[in-house]
Amino acid sequence: MLDVLSDNHGNPSSVHSFGRKAREAVEEARERVAGAVGASPSEIFFTAGGTEADNIAIKGAASKRRGSGSHVAVSAFEHHAVLDAASWLSKTGLEVTTIPVEADGIVSLGAVTEATRPSTILVAVMAVNNEIGTIQPIREIVVAAKGASPDVLVHTDAVQALGNIPVDVHRWGVDLAAFSAHKLGGPKGVGALFVRSGVAVEALVHGGGQERGVRSGTLNVAGIVGFGVAAQLAEKEIDSKAERLEGLRAHLLEGLRSEIPDIVVNGTMERRVAGNLNVAIPGTDGETLLLLLDQAGVACSSGAACASGALDPSHVLLAIGTPREVARGSLRFSLGRDSSAEDVDAVVKALPEAVKRARLVS
Amino acid sequence: MLDVLSDNHGNPSSVHSFGRKAREAVEEARERVAGAVGASPSEIFFTAGGTEADNIAIKGAASKRRGSGSHVAVSAFEHHAVLDAASWLSKTGLEVTTIPVEADGIVSLGAVTEATRPSTILVAVMAVNNEIGTIQPIREIVVAAKGASPDVLVHTDAVQALGNIPVDVHRWGVDLAAFSAHKLGGPKGVGALFVRSGVAVEALVHGGGQERGVRSGTLNVAGIVGFGVAAQLAEKEIDSKAERLEGLRAHLLEGLRSEIPDIVVNGTMERRVAGNLNVAIPGTDGETLLLLLDQAGVACSSGAACASGALDPSHVLLAIGTPREVARGSLRFSLGRDSSAEDVDAVVKALPEAVKRARLVS
Repeated sequence: MLDVLSDNHGNPSSVHSFGRKAREAVEEARERVAGAVGASPSEIFFTAGGTEADNIAIKGAASKRRGSGSHVAVSAFEHHAVLDAASWLSKTGLEVTTIPVEADGIVSLGAVTEATRPSTILVAVMAVNNEIGTIQPIREIVVAAKGASPDVLVHTDAVQALGNIPVDVHRWGVDLAAFSAHKLGGPKGVGALFVRSGVAVEALVHGGGQERGVRSGTLNVAGIVGFGVAAQLAEKEIDSKAERLEGLRAHLLEGLRSEIPDIVVNGTMERRVAGNLNVAIPGTDGETLLLLLDQAGVACSSGAACASGALDPSHVLLAIGTPREVARGSLRFSLGRDSSAEDVDAVVKALPEAVKRARLVS
Repeated sequence: MLDVLSDNHGNPSSVHSFGRKAREAVEEARERVAGAVGASPSEIFFTAGGTEADNIAIKGAASKRRGSGSHVAVSAFEHHAVLDAASWLSKTGLEVTTIPVEADGIVSLGAVTEATRPSTILVAVMAVNNEIGTIQPIREIVVAAKGASPDVLVHTDAVQALGNIPVDVHRWGVDLAAFSAHKLGGPKGVGALFVRSGVAVEALVHGGGQERGVRSGTLNVAGIVGFGVAAQLAEKEIDSKAERLEGLRAHLLEGLRSEIPDIVVNGTMERRVAGNLNVAIPGTDGETLLLLLDQAGVACSSGAACASGALDPSHVLLAIGTPREVARGSLRFSLGRDSSAEDVDAVVKALPEAVKRARLVS
């Protein structure tokens, strides 16, 4: 990225040699991202992030298929990028229904079959939930959806999957998938949309026709280059990273349970990415805990970062049947490449004290 | 940017201290960009570039005002980000008309008055044309449009203005304005939309509600920080840069005229940003010249970079009445911060040879 930012001033759309140099850097990154997700480079379209990719997938596919159907189904615990895009579609006259999620944080195949009708244009189920980390059986979900209606498109928000579990869009059978660079150590503000060859989406942003018309605008060359490298590294490191993080997380959960015996894990621990722990602490308020932990140097979240400041409890926890007051007292801890045993020890030390204080004010 | 990319890993939407650090960096950049364009920080919304900013302005304002009007007017030589967004609006049932441009490359006030009706929702005229560099009388254009219909919104694509001429959105009186970082030496893939306080636009991308709902998605923190610094520097350097580039450009034009006597300047030289020279070379093809010049180490353009590879002659040159065959034989030279007298000499040396060869094949 530093090389691009300091020396490579070309616009990848330009014909001259400076433009070609930038274009080559972009195309190398496209090959890397495609390789990491099991796609062809021509099926990868760079965006400004996961949110834009989700929006192009949901709105762009629905707009294109509007003639052949009138219904869209999305799971209840999707990221707001999917939920709000679907909600926008409902204002344009499409019917949008919600696919329920089981108490363990997994979408059942029966629910997908039930939600998919002959009039369904698109089904969207995320590959890994961003708050509770549960891994969805995407391949089986695609089979269930297409079994119920052969021409339906299936989109998966795979933002939390890439770098955490093996991603293979063609093995999964999805038509569309969204990715984000900063979830795998890449820069913020860059993402990608996978569009299966043969599937058409309508653009949201029109203009110069970059990314073969799917997403116009001068490309974020440095960000895209960073994304490519991050995707390549993340894919290589998946197994070793998962093993290490599972160990750290077990240590974290054990430590917290010994100090706070009534702590409850939200969602199943069985089918969950290694870096996620989401716990409910009865009798507390998550936002209060968050602020107390922040003072102790511990950064965590009470929901999605995007929805920070919202006073409503997490829609994800509500979707898996968590009572509102339990959802309000929940915290999400994310472990990643830089997390160490010392970090875990610091949380195990800080949280019980924070809980004590939070329960006093509660 | 390097500091953000290497150390500042926070998501500006997060509550914890890492998030706050990122948020502070973004807000400092917002103040810098706002200061450079004469806006309040609360009127600046970061985007993935000028194209996205133009799209939000055109589609977002028209969607919001659809109830109160049915017509949009855009000048004939707008960037494709504006033209294609307007053309998309016409597919949704709005009437879109084109404001003609005079032969000198300036939009006349009479044409704006004539194009603006009581049913007009939005008028868009760019501040500086991207191909011929002509500077539009935006303040007077706003007066003309609002004189014809007091409630009309006026948008200006100011991507080529910022850093080249003084920009003051409130003095201009515009309601919306688009900016891009990489036109002032900032990174590619980041821009901003000015939305005058009190004006509402509908978002194109929905989700986490970042940028107060105008543009959801995790922010490109590094790019935004780079944009802020570039905007601040560019504003300081406008006068000295313009004086230097005018000298270089005079030298370039003089040199080319002495070698290629039938060369013609496209658009007026009187009201044009200092870094732009757009010339027609009779009996040649611009794309051929471009490739020959590239071999000689000279990077120029036969139109907008975004439309590279298109075989049609420039819509900008056609809009100012240039015959098709003359438009096809036109080249745009851009001088900037890094351009030197040696660069100009290299062009003066390389172009006549390229023209000779291009005329042989033509």
